[in-house]
Amino acid sequence: MDTELLKINTGVVSDILIRFLSEEIKKIGVKRGILGLSGGVDSSVVACLLARALGPENVYALIMPYRLSNPESRAHAEMLARQLKINYFVRDISPMVDAFFAEESEADQVRRGNKMARERMCLLYDYSAKYQALVIGTSNKTELLLGYGTIHGDLASAINPIGDLYKTHIWQLAEYLGVPREIIDKPPSADLWVGQTDEQELGYTYQEIDRLLYYMVDLRYSNEMLLELGYTPQTINDIYRRMQKSQFKRRPPVIAKVSYRTINQDYRYSRDWGF
Amino acid sequence: MDTELLKINTGVVSDILIRFLSEEIKKIGVKRGILGLSGGVDSSVVACLLARALGPENVYALIMPYRLSNPESRAHAEMLARQLKINYFVRDISPMVDAFFAEESEADQVRRGNKMARERMCLLYDYSAKYQALVIGTSNKTELLLGYGTIHGDLASAINPIGDLYKTHIWQLAEYLGVPREIIDKPPSADLWVGQTDEQELGYTYQEIDRLLYYMVDLRYSNEMLLELGYTPQTINDIYRRMQKSQFKRRPPVIAKVSYRTINQDYRYSRDWGF
Repeated sequence: MDTELLKINTGVVSDILIRFLSEEIKKIGVKRGILGLSGGVDSSVVACLLARALGPENVYALIMPYRLSNPESRAHAEMLARQLKINYFVRDISPMVDAFFAEESEADQVRRGNKMARERMCLLYDYSAKYQALVIGTSNKTELLLGYGTIHGDLASAINPIGDLYKTHIWQLAEYLGVPREIIDKPPSADLWVGQTDEQELGYTYQEIDRLLYYMVDLRYSNEMLLELGYTPQTINDIYRRMQKSQFKRRPPVIAKVSYRTINQDYRYSRDWGF
Repeated sequence: MDTELLKINTGVVSDILIRFLSEEIKKIGVKRGILGLSGGVDSSVVACLLARALGPENVYALIMPYRLSNPESRAHAEMLARQLKINYFVRDISPMVDAFFAEESEADQVRRGNKMARERMCLLYDYSAKYQALVIGTSNKTELLLGYGTIHGDLASAINPIGDLYKTHIWQLAEYLGVPREIIDKPPSADLWVGQTDEQELGYTYQEIDRLLYYMVDLRYSNEMLLELGYTPQTINDIYRRMQKSQFKRRPPVIAKVSYRTINQDYRYSRDWGF
């Protein structure tokens, strides 16, 4: 029974997401979407959905390798872009990132990885202005809940079609949408340094995490019920703390209230208010 | 009577903001704050508040000129930092920004200005990690409501002490806090290109805008009541549209809902949940 837990009806879900994309983008008054293609399964799925929602001629993809990125990432991204017949550009982020750290040679991998993610955001938003294309997010629910992403970097977007789907769901959608086998089967990696894999860095498999998150977040299981599912107190606590500590990445800045109506407190409208 | 409209009790307000800063920063578990110093009145006021909240030794300021920036901006920023005895660094953003546009030489001033703002965000967040210091916002309520700022650029921060104060209020606080005369008296400018001034670019004086925003947003005046105050239908409509069209800059990305609990829809906690 548990193996069925995270199964989705891929046809229904992808129809919903395609309609979401076409309606939200149209409402804002543009007809194009732009996304970063990493060669991984998440951005591949978003590219497939976007091509169906807008037509491939209205989809713009940026492939943004760093000089230490795995060349396979770029090859996979290009393969997918060609398969979908979407517009794509390759922009090397090395000159900007290396200039940034020229005076900070002691910076560790985390700082370097964050800057790479933010440089890519800068390119996406710049091309968004250049091509009048909306920036489409590619972070899944697992990453978003764990805070496994860079604020003002890969987490930045206007709308995100896959932010309510766990990694386990993304793999199913990828199969359904015809993402190439090589992309689906390789171990997920942010490719921010050589040999990095998500599961190694997180300390759990996506299957373990997604199942726990589903019970914890979606079904609101209590701690006792989670223990009965076989998770250790450490695991439960670790995942829960990750969610809490990354909440700042999911919310706008906190403004000190000193007036009658404060932005995001009592001055609150939806993001597409007025469209 | 109207001249009293936007008067604030500077002593009370600055006490509230100083307490806000010290409590919010402590809660997050750090003792330092970092901000970008532009040489303008907004970031000067925030630096003054921060120095009082944390002690000058815990305040880090980044001064980030571009090669076309007005040299006066940097001089004013350094003057303020020295006056407050806070830590400061000067980082020239020209190498990164110029590398970015090397392949995009046709990019207009707006795209260049946005990249400059985002490069500064990258430096602030990187130094935030380096020095374990929280990024403090320096956007005022006028800018925030009009969307007169760069998303994932100068609008990015963890907490913002002045986001509920109009520009007119900031000038009063600046006097109270002892910001140098030269900084208070010069025409406000984002300094993204030579000769830029806010009021010229916006098409209104801050006094006009702030008064209108106060009646419109804080006092919730109807259109008819606003017309009676002497504003033209065009002005009212222009300001209102600016608020609507920039709402996306104040809100997190929209996620397509396909599960029981969706981030920022039915999975919502405060930014400091768990601290």
